[in-house]
Amino acid sequence: MEKRKKRLKIADCLYADSERNSDQLYLSHFWAPDPFLSLKIGRRKIGVLSDLEYGRARSESSFTEILSLTAVRCSASEWLGKKRVCVADQIALLAHIYAIDQLRLPGDFPARLVEDFRQRGLSYKIERGPFFPSRQIKSAEEVEKIREGNRCSAAGHREVRRLLRSSTIKGETLYFKDRPLTSERVRQAIEVACLKAGGISAMTIVAGGDQACDPHSRGSGPLRANELIVVDIFPRMSAHGYFGDMTRTYLKGRASDAQRSLVETVRSAQKLGFSQIRALINGRTIHRSITEFFAAEGFKTTTVNGVPQGFVHGTGHSLGLDIHEFPRISTANHRLRSGHVVTVEPGLYYHGLGGCRIEDVVLVTKTGYQMLSEAPYQWQFP
Amino acid sequence: MEKRKKRLKIADCLYADSERNSDQLYLSHFWAPDPFLSLKIGRRKIGVLSDLEYGRARSESSFTEILSLTAVRCSASEWLGKKRVCVADQIALLAHIYAIDQLRLPGDFPARLVEDFRQRGLSYKIERGPFFPSRQIKSAEEVEKIREGNRCSAAGHREVRRLLRSSTIKGETLYFKDRPLTSERVRQAIEVACLKAGGISAMTIVAGGDQACDPHSRGSGPLRANELIVVDIFPRMSAHGYFGDMTRTYLKGRASDAQRSLVETVRSAQKLGFSQIRALINGRTIHRSITEFFAAEGFKTTTVNGVPQGFVHGTGHSLGLDIHEFPRISTANHRLRSGHVVTVEPGLYYHGLGGCRIEDVVLVTKTGYQMLSEAPYQWQFP
Repeated sequence: MEKRKKRLKIADCLYADSERNSDQLYLSHFWAPDPFLSLKIGRRKIGVLSDLEYGRARSESSFTEILSLTAVRCSASEWLGKKRVCVADQIALLAHIYAIDQLRLPGDFPARLVEDFRQRGLSYKIERGPFFPSRQIKSAEEVEKIREGNRCSAAGHREVRRLLRSSTIKGETLYFKDRPLTSERVRQAIEVACLKAGGISAMTIVAGGDQACDPHSRGSGPLRANELIVVDIFPRMSAHGYFGDMTRTYLKGRASDAQRSLVETVRSAQKLGFSQIRALINGRTIHRSITEFFAAEGFKTTTVNGVPQGFVHGTGHSLGLDIHEFPRISTANHRLRSGHVVTVEPGLYYHGLGGCRIEDVVLVTKTGYQMLSEAPYQWQFP
Repeated sequence: MEKRKKRLKIADCLYADSERNSDQLYLSHFWAPDPFLSLKIGRRKIGVLSDLEYGRARSESSFTEILSLTAVRCSASEWLGKKRVCVADQIALLAHIYAIDQLRLPGDFPARLVEDFRQRGLSYKIERGPFFPSRQIKSAEEVEKIREGNRCSAAGHREVRRLLRSSTIKGETLYFKDRPLTSERVRQAIEVACLKAGGISAMTIVAGGDQACDPHSRGSGPLRANELIVVDIFPRMSAHGYFGDMTRTYLKGRASDAQRSLVETVRSAQKLGFSQIRALINGRTIHRSITEFFAAEGFKTTTVNGVPQGFVHGTGHSLGLDIHEFPRISTANHRLRSGHVVTVEPGLYYHGLGGCRIEDVVLVTKTGYQMLSEAPYQWQFP
């Protein structure tokens, strides 16, 4: 008879709400505003839900087993012979019942609970990398959800084009329906359009002129004629939580040669990015080639008075249930694989001239890529 | 000469993004989508921001000192004599520079970093209670922001009343502009109204009939005449992140005696709740009196076929930068204090009859309370 080494029975353990923690949403497919406990043992997915969420979890979640928090609390209380039990007590009971040898925890697991595990002698291991590596490789269903997210972004951009077409120029300011067209008004119109398309677009960027030189600045105040306006729309779909992410740069009025050159160079850089996307390429190879392209075209990246100018951010990032996921297309050593979904969003920013960023989302394939976002690149509105 | 015992120099330490982590937003007043490091040493608030956020943090945040992540990384790299440094290395360097003896960490601090602290011998203490207890006592400015949040909720409820007034009844279904009025349509109208009032209303509840008996069910499909419709709107203001939270229960058509009795009893329970709110009362005293009131009025709380019915949730919760904060008005032993901001939201739910919840937000004062939410209690739309 062969003697086999006993394999450790390991359970993935999460304690978080699913509106903010995407691992929890990925595991449960269940939206809940307050933290709850879930365990994954092989293919079994076990959720522990309060009375308030129990019924809904049964009909909406992808858990294979749903336990009542009230029942788990009672049992833990009896088992430990104490009146009040905490979350770690409940986990200890479940580890006992399911004969779990070790808990695998995500890097962002609450430190307070880990401290409790140590005091109880519960065995655990903290994952240093991504907790569910499968989240990086998008299924066909996930790809479709991200496509929906980008359709939602595109609905926002449609609204921007409509506003720019219908607006007029008085002096240097844009007007729409007799009032100055501000970043705030455009943002609101975008967010309403996104809502109607099924997504929530928070932190939408509508930044004109030098405001865009801080790439995360949301923008405020009246928009001006003949200035570049960066519009970055990244809505989260309310039905399933996947994001879209698309940026276009617009200009109402007449573009200068310098502005035209900036926009054309960024668009060329994006095409250069697309042309390299395929499985097995390293993200930093793509990023380096774009950096070099910008430099060769005379667009330097430097620091002026302590403020970075030029190509001041990475070329792209993954997205899914989070807006910023791994891998990145940047200076980091990240290899692309089939099924990754990444943005390609080169940008250039110079105080005095303004900023330009053009961003689309692609699915990485064995031989290249597939576009998951679609909106016109028209940027000038005379 | 007196010999004094050296006091430990303790720094509060956070590592989180501020869109999802409210302690980080409370400390920094700065919205950022990716995790960043912040330290609070006495009155000094130090933020470590990437190049992408540095400029914006200088103009928008409430940090007293802003360090460049690039610079901190370089210094840590030199100091430790290694090429790649992680977040814990950066924290170790800052602890050294600022002569910090111990780091105070929130309960939800990432476990991965705490493990790194232990390996480096960095002294830390994990806070078991609220990290910033001052968050529970709202300043006048915070109270005003929550009031704004409730004005935003009220804008949503105004929209619901408008839709119900303008809708017609065909058979048992509500119609608006020749199409069935669904939970989804009402939700979208609410969310658009909230956007225009400056807030994002995610997860809005519009639940008719038995759907409302799961108090966290969002509701779906056509709304029916002569059914109770629970509408719970809790938007987060985009400018500052404070929430509003208001629930009303509506009915289009003719209410039955049982429905009228349900609504009137819940409204009476809410008034009973208000009448007890004042500093120093225990939340569970209020909750118990409402539970007893419901029972005395003949509204039992029981479990039918494993599903709780009756008064199935707490009476209220605090809110602020999070939608659910402490203290609670529930079975928990939480004493109210002046400056707490709490909801008062009794509810009753019976399958077959439907649900009713009425929710407002009040500021606890020394002698009573101050309403922070305002919307009509009209519920019948003939």
